[in-house]
Amino acid sequence: MLVEFSMVPMGGGDSISAEVAKIIDIVDKSGLKYETHAMGTLIEGSWEECMALIKQCHDKLRDVAPRVYTRIAIDDREGDKSKMDRKLASVREKLGRDFNQGH
Amino acid sequence: MLVEFSMVPMGGGDSISAEVAKIIDIVDKSGLKYETHAMGTLIEGSWEECMALIKQCHDKLRDVAPRVYTRIAIDDREGDKSKMDRKLASVREKLGRDFNQGH
Amino acid sequence: MLVEFSMVPMGGGDSISAEVAKIIDIVDKSGLKYETHAMGTLIEGSWEECMALIKQCHDKLRDVAPRVYTRIAIDDREGDKSKMDRKLASVREKLGRDFNQGH
Amino acid sequence: MLVEFSMVPMGGGDSISAEVAKIIDIVDKSGLKYETHAMGTLIEGSWEECMALIKQCHDKLRDVAPRVYTRIAIDDREGDKSKMDRKLASVREKLGRDFNQGH
Repeated sequence: MLVEFSMVPMGGGDSISAEVAKIIDIVDKSGLKYETHAMGTLIEGSWEECMALIKQCHDKLRDVAPRVYTRIAIDDREGDKSKMDRKLASVREKLGRDFNQGH
Repeated sequence: MLVEFSMVPMGGGDSISAEVAKIIDIVDKSGLKYETHAMGTLIEGSWEECMALIKQCHDKLRDVAPRVYTRIAIDDREGDKSKMDRKLASVREKLGRDFNQGH
Repeated sequence: MLVEFSMVPMGGGDSISAEVAKIIDIVDKSGLKYETHAMGTLIEGSWEECMALIKQCHDKLRDVAPRVYTRIAIDDREGDKSKMDRKLASVREKLGRDFNQGH
Repeated sequence: MLVEFSMVPMGGGDSISAEVAKIIDIVDKSGLKYETHAMGTLIEGSWEECMALIKQCHDKLRDVAPRVYTRIAIDDREGDKSKMDRKLASVREKLGRDFNQGH
């Protein structure tokens, strides 16, 4: 299962990078395959693994913020095909060339 | 302004990589800074630039699918601080180390 | 905790009302306070209650579709203030009049 | 076209009902068919109508907050079938009974 999530703590300033760093630290140590981009984090795992990790991150933020908005998007496909590398490789193949070359 | 979007065409099969490739092709040629990950695409630009590009992608999909779900997330911060590189660098600084090392 | 979710089954036609009806049936019988609108469903409960119900709905859809996209948005605020009725009443009070009058 | 949106102003307190009320006021006076629930607002209209209204709301919030997160979900279906009333009626028909009875 492929899951993307993002969290916004409310009630503090408009910079939330310190809070986001706490989340990344938890994800980085979880052992799940992940990728953090500028608007959220992708993780790969079972429903139970992904949701346990997201809850851990959410609770961590709620410890320091009175209100937290958490967004989760799940792509669940039979045959274990919802994987980061597989999806991008498939698009690359259909496109017939690479992309994300500006990075 | 930093914008993330994703699109799901309905009414076809469960593989949509060919349709996604059409979208990436449009984004890649747009001239806007972008980054495509396995659950969506991030773009940087003004409201008008970003929305015009997203509409172009959405219309392209609607040409080949009877129904399209499009999701957009906007992070708009004063002083032009909503940028991909800046956000990740800020988290990296707060974390005190790099992440995304599994890639 | 207030949670909104929506699910899109892939690999079938562009009409998904039969699948959505199966989901509403599960939610309606769950005992949790809920409200279904034209783009998703809101539920109130603890993290465990809400996520167990959403997993049940997600699994039900995966039984009939090879791929399912599920979106979840969580509003979690201290003092149990993330409630449907409370939030709308608070906006109504600030606005100084009612809204949604076209319905 | 059916569009759901929600906005979160950052940099203030954890209560945002006053800001949300400003948004509802704009939507309510727009003339577009809409419905506000506890996690967002649904509007019906063309791409141009919906996006112009959402931009107006977003800009209003940015006037009072240094950072705004805006989320948009679009359901666009041929034959003008993406309508609030139609979608709920279709689910009701498939379900064979009414729902949302707890309200």
